Amino acid sequence: MSKKNAGSVLVLCALALVVTLGWARLSHAQDRAGQPKYVFLFIGDGTSFPQRNAAEFFRASQEAPNPQDEILRAQGKISKNTGVTTFSPNTKRLTMNTFPAQGISTTYSYNSLITDSSSSGTAIATGHKTRDGVVSMDPDGKVNYTSMAKIAKAQGKKVGIITSVSLDHATPAVFYANQPNRNDFYEIAIQGPKSGFDFFGGGYFLGPKDKKGNGKDTVDVYREYGYHVATDRAGFEALNRSNGKVLTYNAILDPDNALPFRLDRGTENEIALPEFVAKAIELLDNDDGFFIMTEGGKVDWACHANDAMSAILDVIDLDDAVTVAYEFYKKHPEDTLIVVTGDHETGGMTVGFAGTRYDTFLDRITNQQGSYVTFNSVVNELKKTYPNAPTVAQIMPTIREFFGLELYPESEMAALEKAAKDGDLAAIEKLKYALRPYEVEKIERAIKMSWTDKSDRPDDDFYYANYGSYEPLTVAMTQTLNNKAGIGWTTFSHSGLPTPVSAIGVGSEQFVGHYDNTDIFKKIVSIAY
Amino acid sequence: MSKKNAGSVLVLCALALVVTLGWARLSHAQDRAGQPKYVFLFIGDGTSFPQRNAAEFFRASQEAPNPQDEILRAQGKISKNTGVTTFSPNTKRLTMNTFPAQGISTTYSYNSLITDSSSSGTAIATGHKTRDGVVSMDPDGKVNYTSMAKIAKAQGKKVGIITSVSLDHATPAVFYANQPNRNDFYEIAIQGPKSGFDFFGGGYFLGPKDKKGNGKDTVDVYREYGYHVATDRAGFEALNRSNGKVLTYNAILDPDNALPFRLDRGTENEIALPEFVAKAIELLDNDDGFFIMTEGGKVDWACHANDAMSAILDVIDLDDAVTVAYEFYKKHPEDTLIVVTGDHETGGMTVGFAGTRYDTFLDRITNQQGSYVTFNSVVNELKKTYPNAPTVAQIMPTIREFFGLELYPESEMAALEKAAKDGDLAAIEKLKYALRPYEVEKIERAIKMSWTDKSDRPDDDFYYANYGSYEPLTVAMTQTLNNKAGIGWTTFSHSGLPTPVSAIGVGSEQFVGHYDNTDIFKKIVSIAY
Repeated sequence: MSKKNAGSVLVLCALALVVTLGWARLSHAQDRAGQPKYVFLFIGDGTSFPQRNAAEFFRASQEAPNPQDEILRAQGKISKNTGVTTFSPNTKRLTMNTFPAQGISTTYSYNSLITDSSSSGTAIATGHKTRDGVVSMDPDGKVNYTSMAKIAKAQGKKVGIITSVSLDHATPAVFYANQPNRNDFYEIAIQGPKSGFDFFGGGYFLGPKDKKGNGKDTVDVYREYGYHVATDRAGFEALNRSNGKVLTYNAILDPDNALPFRLDRGTENEIALPEFVAKAIELLDNDDGFFIMTEGGKVDWACHANDAMSAILDVIDLDDAVTVAYEFYKKHPEDTLIVVTGDHETGGMTVGFAGTRYDTFLDRITNQQGSYVTFNSVVNELKKTYPNAPTVAQIMPTIREFFGLELYPESEMAALEKAAKDGDLAAIEKLKYALRPYEVEKIERAIKMSWTDKSDRPDDDFYYANYGSYEPLTVAMTQTLNNKAGIGWTTFSHSGLPTPVSAIGVGSEQFVGHYDNTDIFKKIVSIAY
Repeated sequence: MSKKNAGSVLVLCALALVVTLGWARLSHAQDRAGQPKYVFLFIGDGTSFPQRNAAEFFRASQEAPNPQDEILRAQGKISKNTGVTTFSPNTKRLTMNTFPAQGISTTYSYNSLITDSSSSGTAIATGHKTRDGVVSMDPDGKVNYTSMAKIAKAQGKKVGIITSVSLDHATPAVFYANQPNRNDFYEIAIQGPKSGFDFFGGGYFLGPKDKKGNGKDTVDVYREYGYHVATDRAGFEALNRSNGKVLTYNAILDPDNALPFRLDRGTENEIALPEFVAKAIELLDNDDGFFIMTEGGKVDWACHANDAMSAILDVIDLDDAVTVAYEFYKKHPEDTLIVVTGDHETGGMTVGFAGTRYDTFLDRITNQQGSYVTFNSVVNELKKTYPNAPTVAQIMPTIREFFGLELYPESEMAALEKAAKDGDLAAIEKLKYALRPYEVEKIERAIKMSWTDKSDRPDDDFYYANYGSYEPLTVAMTQTLNNKAGIGWTTFSHSGLPTPVSAIGVGSEQFVGHYDNTDIFKKIVSIAY
């Protein structure tokens, strides 16, 4: 072919492309009558009914006086609150719970009643059940499944992927990657830029390099694909639509390269989940619309560790992110669909514990000064101070400071209990935070385990049932405080509970009912794409 | 007034009454356009998301092969199932979960995040929050609230009240009685016949006489008010529309005058919940319609006792009763509304236990030969055989027979574990039901408590957190078996979890969303009355 002919062919091809794209766009615009331009999908990892319930009840404990207390006070029987939490119809609800469409989604995976996050994420993102551990592929890890994010991108939408954990974690991964094993972090991470999605925001990567520490740096791969990268607040705030495709992560990270828990948030430099959502909206809003997936990933982590305070605040953080989308929806009610769900429940969390019977004292967990991750560091410091396992009494200054709990000598405890029975309010208040003998025993056993070399700890179901894979003393402390507040746990893993699906906007009525997590994909795609 | 004049006035009055009633009936018929003639309300006591979830998963364990097993078998790696439960999309769903409208209801009471059954029942039946323990009155027990059943009756509907527990228990009571204290069983019971409701069916009474054993027998009061009484299967089956108002209870009762658990059902003479619903429909169907409230009351009791097998079968029994109504609905879809809810969650039940991690082995609970109530009797027999606390080894014949569990000597256990690690399937199967040392310890501690006089048992939170108010050995056994199946519990009381609301038929779309239990009253009344 001569150069001139080649040039003509090129011109013709270009023309054909322009015409084709124009027609595709036109026909797409025609198709879109009644379809939402803007789709938000929020996934609370490990966030099911109990987590939403605990978060709303926690708010009640902070806001609503107990009418029983008011009556008792009026009768002169108490001078201040009993601390028993109740609920006022005026308590601020979670935004997600106020959405008109509420559905219930089963979460079982291809091979287990209790799913993991990659199989449940694959179900939500692609509409297919798969084996636990697989990222948007069939159970044998051979066939790629296509996510709704990729479908949206193919239809000319801008696409954003946001998470509070690392960007190569299972839940964000299922939207942009296909990988037989969720732990191949690097292989997953470098599929991000190849997706051509417009916005990646949240945590950093668990696979910045491959497992041998080789390979091009993940962030460099993003740059190679034309992504503008912002890694601190200044860079984040400077982001604007002229930047094109964006990768932005929080410079302040936890040990797993995720955003810190809201409970641990320290400085204004930390960018929170709701801010990432607001920024994504700012950058991605365009006439063809967008699809933004946002994961609140650390509710799951806190529940794995049986740490209610961290879980609850991160549910509220996720809901704040939902609220950002809801404010956008209010400006574009005819063009927007918001869907909020969880991928599964974690921890077997319940507001209801045998030891506190029908009462709940949720304000007690506010005594906790940081997440289980932060307390792990505290335990590591204690190990330096005490080379041999200390007694509970020895570490009481730490327990007092971090969890607000107190240990009284036996005689003083008996006196307090007697005074409490006689109605002494100061004694009642002190006893709320007093460690009971069986709690002291539990902490003592945990100390012994924490001060035992990991390789020497028992490798059996009983050890696991008590501590999972966590620092024993940390688990014993959060469980003890949670139990005193009336919160119980059954597992360090996920559970089989269905999850709520809350929706508002165009097509949201389709999310009513009791259905499977694979139906979430089918519904969103049938409504929007 | 002369006799003649009096006679004229009487005639005039009668005429006025006839005209008024006729007009009322006419205007009522006119009002009723678009309103359901037939309303069914089902309340699963203690039946929330986890209970429905466990029941469906249990069915899966009985019906669906695990695809992982099939692959392992094809690969020659196993010869029979691993016993790990998974879910097939073909598994038979609960009828209630297939209803098109699914909502979420908060359950907190006037004075507590964790409600009791009388306050949650009052909220559902009357639309008012009240204090725990109060039956359809205000929190101070001074003002009567009017139930939807009474509203239906006043509008000329026939009314049926059905429960698997005693008819004077809190949940049925809130529909026909007003009482400041739910434990005033006799005072509640005798309000039944005074309500004029047309059908009372299920268990007997906890208050056949007043607390001093005095007062007219409750059943006699029913007879006095013109009720036809049927107390056995022959009488039940003979019931027909010519009997007028009916009281019918099962002659075969548990120690609390309730229907026995489905797990304990022994003879054909026992009338089950679905049969009561079918009979009520047969007797109450009429041109003006009916309101039938049916309570599955013993899911709650089983969950209080942490007995999953009894709870799951009673959820299925309740669902079978719902299915009877659903079959009626299919014949009268334009005239029927069915609403199914729970009053609260009980037990903090979770399919997910730390010791079994992500696996679930629900078929293991089928080993249980009877409910916790039946095993309590077994324990009483053991106490006669062993005047002093026996060892676990001594009572193994009983444990083996009732729960299918086995105790192996330490050396044999070690050999089994080694063989299992080498892939010996017989060993793997045996280990599923083998008691581990920490389980043996738990059972041993419970035996010691069960063999301690009730008055000598500790009266503290630790004892309560372990055994609640139950027979310690029974609790230890059901918990151990449940844990081996992958089911965990957090409490012997209720929890704060919301409950599902499932609806089908006329107006059912109003039950979509996330709302309060008081709204269930408001919705049903606005739709039907």
